[in-house]
Amino acid sequence: MSFELIILGSSSALPTSKRSTAAHLLNMNERFFLIDCGEGTQIQLRRFRLSPARINHIFISHLHGDHVFGLFGMISSLGLMGRKAILNLYGPTALEEMIRVHLGFSGTLPFELRFHVAQEKQVIYQDSKTEVIPVRLKHRAETFGYLFREKPRLLNVDKAKIEEYGLGVADIKNIKEGRDHLLEDGTVVPNASLTLPPIRQRSYAYISDTAYLPGIAEQIRGVDLLFHEATFLEKDLGLANQTLHSTARQAALVAKAAGAGKLLLGHFSTRYKSDELFLEEARAEFPESVAVNDGDRFTVEQRRVQRD
Amino acid sequence: MSFELIILGSSSALPTSKRSTAAHLLNMNERFFLIDCGEGTQIQLRRFRLSPARINHIFISHLHGDHVFGLFGMISSLGLMGRKAILNLYGPTALEEMIRVHLGFSGTLPFELRFHVAQEKQVIYQDSKTEVIPVRLKHRAETFGYLFREKPRLLNVDKAKIEEYGLGVADIKNIKEGRDHLLEDGTVVPNASLTLPPIRQRSYAYISDTAYLPGIAEQIRGVDLLFHEATFLEKDLGLANQTLHSTARQAALVAKAAGAGKLLLGHFSTRYKSDELFLEEARAEFPESVAVNDGDRFTVEQRRVQRD
Repeated sequence: MSFELIILGSSSALPTSKRSTAAHLLNMNERFFLIDCGEGTQIQLRRFRLSPARINHIFISHLHGDHVFGLFGMISSLGLMGRKAILNLYGPTALEEMIRVHLGFSGTLPFELRFHVAQEKQVIYQDSKTEVIPVRLKHRAETFGYLFREKPRLLNVDKAKIEEYGLGVADIKNIKEGRDHLLEDGTVVPNASLTLPPIRQRSYAYISDTAYLPGIAEQIRGVDLLFHEATFLEKDLGLANQTLHSTARQAALVAKAAGAGKLLLGHFSTRYKSDELFLEEARAEFPESVAVNDGDRFTVEQRRVQRD
Repeated sequence: MSFELIILGSSSALPTSKRSTAAHLLNMNERFFLIDCGEGTQIQLRRFRLSPARINHIFISHLHGDHVFGLFGMISSLGLMGRKAILNLYGPTALEEMIRVHLGFSGTLPFELRFHVAQEKQVIYQDSKTEVIPVRLKHRAETFGYLFREKPRLLNVDKAKIEEYGLGVADIKNIKEGRDHLLEDGTVVPNASLTLPPIRQRSYAYISDTAYLPGIAEQIRGVDLLFHEATFLEKDLGLANQTLHSTARQAALVAKAAGAGKLLLGHFSTRYKSDELFLEEARAEFPESVAVNDGDRFTVEQRRVQRD
């Protein structure tokens, strides 16, 4: 059961020779979620040998070009490749108008586009294993981050206990759902003694672009992987405030407050020559910080909760 | 005095890991003309270390995505880089509407966009050294090729002759413009005996996308470099006819009829694994054929006409 994030583009507004504009691909149990789609995203997918045909869901944070200019080419290419499956697009209200106007110039598609408008904290996507929840951000256009997380799973019943207590189908169903087991003599066998420790729900939060918003930590508490934009360094805090972007230190403060597993930093302004200073600044607040590059992959392993 | 063509993107509709979508950069005497602007063109410019800031004129053949989806990002990035100079855009009628609608989503620019509508055989751009003439093509949208050529230059007067005939400023001006010289005794000294052989006018024709149009050979007669789309091989002539594209053989027939110096083939359909068959097919009709790749550069040297 895979949980892998692939960085397709890690630049801010201007692409560089090494960094493409914003796009992440998240593989959750072989469902592929594309998150933002800057210019060249379809080319990055090919470069990293990832199939655009497997993407059925695209989440857009906001309509600034470096997050969305790759959508037209992506949609157009999927049409040329003969796609038939519905393509779902999630994002701010104006996304549908932008895409529809655009398609007016390039003709009909052989597949349906289905639009879903993001609303703060309202589940925008779910299937049996996964749910996605928008996080309202503060930027110069309507902007959402997204929290991707696994749904809780049924517990695994310890096979030895099935025999020991002679558990039937109905008993097992109850225990899988977390209930304790009542013996005929009235003794209660606690659920935890009948089941394996539960499997942790893995999660990824994509936070870009935004002014410093300490309040979002609550919404993404315990997230395994947190991508948080870090356009500026703290010495340019004035610029960050003015353009509604964050500094590396602010990103780290959010990661710390959220108790994140790992902080991924990106969206660095091209005014800085290297990402070393971003790392140094973030690690002072949150040691588990990394600066991402195009092509980087981050995996969250499946593991069970530690029981005392 | 440079005359260099740089291939930025050589794919057809679908970009591949090796080929970006359509874009050529032509450097004529340090004026930089961008011709078509498929997705990722700004990234290709950076990759080949070419400055987008030096481009003041962009020519668009037609509004299919693989020729125009890079314009939004290019324009947006030029704005972010603080451009002040006018950016001139040349193309079919609907180009302005497409761009204006788009800019409505992404805010104001710090520079002016100036649109120029292409019309068949009407000079669409000129300066003291250069002129550009649209070539009407036949495709599924309104489409133009473009012929870029140097204007004729004034002749260079042979310095030895100035002394020999005691030529004055007015005489020299007349001779530079091609007139013969009349001596006081009535003798006519032919212009050719007073001047160096004239410098050839160099030219480049960009022909994409189009059904086979033998008639365009007349309009681009004697062109030094001819890029002609070759989406299909002759074995798929039916597909070429149906989609209004050309085969490699048809491109070669145009080059032969035009007496071109060199034929550059590109825009190959991704259905073919290699460009070898395109080359073979074209060279049977026109030996000076090459298949282009992203990053290829083609130079036309300045030289004088051979006088008998």
